[in-house]
Amino acid sequence: MNHPPGFKLGILGGGQLARMLALASYPLGILPYIFAKNQTEPATQVSPYLFLGDVNDHNSLKNFLKNCDVVTFESEFLDAKLLDTLSKELNVRIYPSPSLMGQLQDRLTQKQILFKYKIPTAPYLEINTWADFQKIKNLSSQIVMKQRRFGYDGYGTFFIQASSDKSVWDEIQAKSPYGFIAESKIHFKRELALILARDQQGQVIDFPLVESKQTHARCDWVIGPVKHKKETQLRNKLKLFLKKIDYIGVIAFELFDTGKELLVNEIAPRVHNSGHYSLDALTLSQFQAHVMAVAGFKLPKPKLLSPFAMTNLLGLTSTGPYWNADWFNKNQNSHLHWYGKIENRKDRKMGHINTLDSKPQNALKKSLLARRKVSL
Amino acid sequence: MNHPPGFKLGILGGGQLARMLALASYPLGILPYIFAKNQTEPATQVSPYLFLGDVNDHNSLKNFLKNCDVVTFESEFLDAKLLDTLSKELNVRIYPSPSLMGQLQDRLTQKQILFKYKIPTAPYLEINTWADFQKIKNLSSQIVMKQRRFGYDGYGTFFIQASSDKSVWDEIQAKSPYGFIAESKIHFKRELALILARDQQGQVIDFPLVESKQTHARCDWVIGPVKHKKETQLRNKLKLFLKKIDYIGVIAFELFDTGKELLVNEIAPRVHNSGHYSLDALTLSQFQAHVMAVAGFKLPKPKLLSPFAMTNLLGLTSTGPYWNADWFNKNQNSHLHWYGKIENRKDRKMGHINTLDSKPQNALKKSLLARRKVSL
Repeated sequence: MNHPPGFKLGILGGGQLARMLALASYPLGILPYIFAKNQTEPATQVSPYLFLGDVNDHNSLKNFLKNCDVVTFESEFLDAKLLDTLSKELNVRIYPSPSLMGQLQDRLTQKQILFKYKIPTAPYLEINTWADFQKIKNLSSQIVMKQRRFGYDGYGTFFIQASSDKSVWDEIQAKSPYGFIAESKIHFKRELALILARDQQGQVIDFPLVESKQTHARCDWVIGPVKHKKETQLRNKLKLFLKKIDYIGVIAFELFDTGKELLVNEIAPRVHNSGHYSLDALTLSQFQAHVMAVAGFKLPKPKLLSPFAMTNLLGLTSTGPYWNADWFNKNQNSHLHWYGKIENRKDRKMGHINTLDSKPQNALKKSLLARRKVSL
Repeated sequence: MNHPPGFKLGILGGGQLARMLALASYPLGILPYIFAKNQTEPATQVSPYLFLGDVNDHNSLKNFLKNCDVVTFESEFLDAKLLDTLSKELNVRIYPSPSLMGQLQDRLTQKQILFKYKIPTAPYLEINTWADFQKIKNLSSQIVMKQRRFGYDGYGTFFIQASSDKSVWDEIQAKSPYGFIAESKIHFKRELALILARDQQGQVIDFPLVESKQTHARCDWVIGPVKHKKETQLRNKLKLFLKKIDYIGVIAFELFDTGKELLVNEIAPRVHNSGHYSLDALTLSQFQAHVMAVAGFKLPKPKLLSPFAMTNLLGLTSTGPYWNADWFNKNQNSHLHWYGKIENRKDRKMGHINTLDSKPQNALKKSLLARRKVSL
C-alpha cells in the first residue's frame, strides 16, 4: 500500500458511519484511514488505508494513531481514558475530545451535563441499589430504566411501572453491570431530531429539524424539515451548550415533542442515522460537516435543497438492490445508499434511501414505495 | 486484500474521472476495480481494489477483466481491437462498446458517423497527403487541422490558413503519425456542451445545456443552465443517434454556438469535464449515471437543484486547498472536489469547485472568488 502525501483522517470503526465519513473525505483531498475490526466491515471496502485491530487494544490503537494527522470515531462506546492518554502521548488530536466522549457515553454523566447547562430533558435518578430503586416512584408512575453504558437502538432500555417490586429490580439489575438511570417516561406526540456541528474556529452550524419514526426500537424513517414552536429556543440553547463544552464535530440530539415542549432524549457525539438525509437534501452533508470540522476547515452554513424523507433498509427485507431492480426509474428523486454489509441479519441496517419531493409527506410516500421496490 | 461479494465494476484508468466514477459506485453497493498505471494516480487513493498495469498490455488487461463483472473506461484512447477481443474471449461486457469507442476515438470516423446520422457539424476533409492538403481551400479560408488520434485539450490541433504552402503541411505532418482531418474553422459566439446517457434498457436521459469557457485550450469554467433556440432539435437528434448506434453510458458533446446554429465540435464517449457540475447541481451526477447505465440500472431523469458554475483548479495556482484555507465559509454554496494528484504541474487539472446560486452568472462570480481563495 502506497501512502500518498495528504492529510490523514483516522476513523475509529468500520461500520456504515465510518464508510460514509470516508466517502465524504475524498473530495476534500483528505485520506481516510480506517481502523476496523475485520475486513468484512463496510468501511473497509471504500479505502485502501486500512488498519485491522481491536479498538480497545493499546498497541494496535497506538500504531494507528501514530499514522494519522487527526482522529475521529463512529461510535462513542470507546475507552475514553485510553484514547485521551494516547492522544496526549502521541500528540495526535482526537475530535470530539475523548473526555467529552466519555461524559456523553454514560447516560448518567450525559444527564448531569444536560442539567448543568439547563437543556430541557426528562427528570432522572441514578440507580445502583435496591434502595435507589425504591425512590423511582418520586419521578412518575411510568419509568424508563436505561443502562448507563453501551445502550443503543433500544438495547439496554426497560419500561416499567414505578410500583415495581424487588423481583423486577433483580431482573433488570442482572442484565447489565454498568448501573442504571431511571427516567420519567415521557408521553410524546412524536420523536424529533436535530443535528449541529461546531468547527475549531468556534462557529456552530445547525441542520433542519426532522421527525424520526422508530419501529421496534429501530429508526424506520426520517422526514423534514418539520417545525416546532420551541425550535428556535432549543437551537440557541444547544449552540451555547456546544460552545461552553468546546465541542468539535457533528453532534446529534434525539428529541421528544410533548406538544408544548421539546425535550432532549439522548445525545450522540457523532454523525447519526437521523442525519443521513443530508447526503442528498442539503448543500452540506453531516459527513462532510464532521470531516471538515475535525480536519480544521471552517464550516459553511448548510442550505436546504428540497424537503426530504429517509427510509432505512433493514435486514432480510433488503437482500440486494441491484441490476434487476428498476425502482430508480420509478422513483426519480430517490437516492440509494448501500452499506455493503456481507451478512444480512434481521433488522440490521443494510442501507438507506433518500427521497426528495416538494413536501416531506410526499417524499415519505415515494421513499416507502422505493423501499418496497428494493426489497427483493 | 479481501474481496467481499458484490458487483465488480472495472474502470480502465486511474485519473480523476476514474476516481469520481469509483466514488459514485459505492453508494450503489458496487465495488470499483481500478486498473491504473501506477500508485500515484488519483483513483488509486479511493479504492482497495487496485490492479497495476499497462492498459495496452494483453496479459495484465486480461487478468483485470477476468476479475470484473462489467468494465468501463475513463479515456477513449485505448486499443479498441484488443478490448473487443478480450471482451468476447472472457465474456466480460465493456460499455460503451469497444467498437464504438474505436470509431469515436478517431476524428475521421467520428466525423463520418456524425455525417451518417445527420448531426450538424463542421465540414471536413480527410488529409493524408500533400495532394489531399491542397484541397483544403475548398472548405473555407481558415482551417483547423486535427490529428486523427490522441488529440485532447488542444493537443494535436493546428489553426492554419487554407492558402498554406507545402512547408506548413510538412511541419504539421511531422507532428503526428496518425493522419489528419481538416475542418472549416467555425466562428462561434460561445462553446456549449451537452451530456446524455443511455441505459441498457434503451432509455436516454439528458443533462442541462452548459456554456464552457476554454482558456489556453483548457476548460477554465462551465456555467448552466443556458438556452439555445436549436437546443430541443439537437437533443432529439442526439437521442435518436444514441439509439441508432446502441450506445451505453454517458456521452459528452462539445458544441459551437454560431448564433443561428448549434454544431457538434467533438464527441467524448465517457464522463467529461463539462459535466462535473452535476456532482452538486443535479439530483443525478454524470458519474452516477454512467455507473448505473454500465452496471445495468435503469436511469432516472436528473432534476436540476440550482443554477451552477464549475471552475477548474489548474496546476501551480492550486497547490493544496486544506486546513488553513477559510474559503468555504465565505463561499457557502461552493463544493470542493480535489483529485489528490501528487505532482502539481502547470495547467494540470488538480480539482474543481462547483458553486450554486440563483443565476449562473452569480454562481460563476462566487466560484471564481472561491478559486482565488483556494490558490495559496
